[in-house]
Amino acid sequence: MNRITELFGIRYPVVQGGMIWCSGWKLAAAVSNAGGLGLIGSGSMHPELLREHIHKCRDATKSPFGVNIPLLFGHSEAFIRICIEEQVPAVFTSAGNPVKYTKLLQENGIRVAHVVANTKGALKCTEAGVDAIVAEGFEAGGHNGREETTTLVLIPLVRRVTQLPLIAAGGIATGRGMLAAMALGADGVQIGSRFAASEESSAHPSFKQKIAEASEGDTMLSLKKLVPVRLLKNEFFRKVSELEQNGAPASELEALLAKGRAGLGMFEGDMVEGELEIGQASALIREIKPVSDIMEEIITEYRQALQMLPDHAF
Amino acid sequence: MNRITELFGIRYPVVQGGMIWCSGWKLAAAVSNAGGLGLIGSGSMHPELLREHIHKCRDATKSPFGVNIPLLFGHSEAFIRICIEEQVPAVFTSAGNPVKYTKLLQENGIRVAHVVANTKGALKCTEAGVDAIVAEGFEAGGHNGREETTTLVLIPLVRRVTQLPLIAAGGIATGRGMLAAMALGADGVQIGSRFAASEESSAHPSFKQKIAEASEGDTMLSLKKLVPVRLLKNEFFRKVSELEQNGAPASELEALLAKGRAGLGMFEGDMVEGELEIGQASALIREIKPVSDIMEEIITEYRQALQMLPDHAF
Repeated sequence: MNRITELFGIRYPVVQGGMIWCSGWKLAAAVSNAGGLGLIGSGSMHPELLREHIHKCRDATKSPFGVNIPLLFGHSEAFIRICIEEQVPAVFTSAGNPVKYTKLLQENGIRVAHVVANTKGALKCTEAGVDAIVAEGFEAGGHNGREETTTLVLIPLVRRVTQLPLIAAGGIATGRGMLAAMALGADGVQIGSRFAASEESSAHPSFKQKIAEASEGDTMLSLKKLVPVRLLKNEFFRKVSELEQNGAPASELEALLAKGRAGLGMFEGDMVEGELEIGQASALIREIKPVSDIMEEIITEYRQALQMLPDHAF
Repeated sequence: MNRITELFGIRYPVVQGGMIWCSGWKLAAAVSNAGGLGLIGSGSMHPELLREHIHKCRDATKSPFGVNIPLLFGHSEAFIRICIEEQVPAVFTSAGNPVKYTKLLQENGIRVAHVVANTKGALKCTEAGVDAIVAEGFEAGGHNGREETTTLVLIPLVRRVTQLPLIAAGGIATGRGMLAAMALGADGVQIGSRFAASEESSAHPSFKQKIAEASEGDTMLSLKKLVPVRLLKNEFFRKVSELEQNGAPASELEALLAKGRAGLGMFEGDMVEGELEIGQASALIREIKPVSDIMEEIITEYRQALQMLPDHAF
């Protein structure tokens, strides 16, 4: 037991990141059944589809689960209402101001965590009175902070400004990564890419395969003139990169990005022209496995690495 | 005792990064006297000045110390010769091929470590037969890898391809950071920025003050069209950044960089036009202190954080 397992009523302090196109009810239920906290990623859903996923998730697990809601999207208010109506155990908000919905959710018996990329965001979280903070470093897939602060530096910085339960995210895919995060002062971890490449993920099989094959240097933080996002290198990335090298303005990048690129890549499986959002930790992922195996591996490695830590006389 | 303390004959597995303009004999001797391995940074020296620093360092400490030699500089062969003539206990090479001098140094009784930013470099190190590998992540100050792999991801990757003694570098300034590195599979750490801001560092007082004041987002990996380098944001950085935003070619960046910018900033104290190379961990540094205090703080925090690691039933 620790603060995170107690807060969410789970066995292991491991949260599965609520990723667009990858984390529907199947993945969330599998992670919750394996002892972690599964999150349905609402970012790529319409409100009534979210409701359907919540129903199916509840049918598939007796354990607590949650929903991730990016607050900057048009549907966020509808998502919040649905989570309240459906009495979802936990809501993880991101990309917006946590002050907006935290109290409302808590008054309806929902645990609230908010995702930040810097101490400024962490201070807003304490102001909002969230139950937990997710601090996400430069390594993370998808949208990312402008300051490029890595998890190794970010977690101790956030720990200095708040005593709230703290979940480390970005670059964590293994038990050793989890132990490192705890060493830095986190109470739990949020893992995205590793679960995106699980059997239960709703990502397209071709995308899962790409994640398993990715090695160091195969992802890069891109589109910094819009909102920075970590992408797996493919033809679309190369087009973005070329525009950026030549100093193209934001409008040109926007025109190239257009709409639907993320779904095209991650869900429909276009590995050439799709936008493939994934974390740097993909370099550590070698196989597509069931969630239960992944969780067991992470926890076993955590325990072994803890035993191996030098406690000798220095 | 562990593999790193045994290899170098030191008390704590803490190496002080051999930084240009910051790490002369005073800093190296202070770190070695405090139980770590101090390194003289030869990168900003002429060969005979290096010899002088080696002599002074030997006078100031009875403990082992070393010299960092960037292999791509014109003087590298002279530096190697001097380290052999002077029977320096350890040489850390970087920015070049470790195969070139490793055997020669070892035949002369010198321990050799080489700095890498990826697994390809680590494999070259095993081929060269180095005594230890320094794997340096994206967080590090100064010159940096193109793949932007952070320490959190890099250390486990390197650990997978080699069983050699492994020193983690980049983003480490505290005992918690050191513990995280050990959790990831490192046998020791190399710390730069924290020692650059020590009393014994030869950095200009204004630069030390800037490091202590720096917070998150105040450093950025820059000059990627030349050799990527992590810089503290100042007027010079802003000029670089503007050129980069507008897609300026490498030649224009080279002309702006010109010669002598690093010395101008870090040694002469021009905080406006100088090139200020420092790590992301500067955000964690708040005070300029003597090396002995820094080392004690790091080791004490390491021990405390180790005790606090959750070993409960998950």
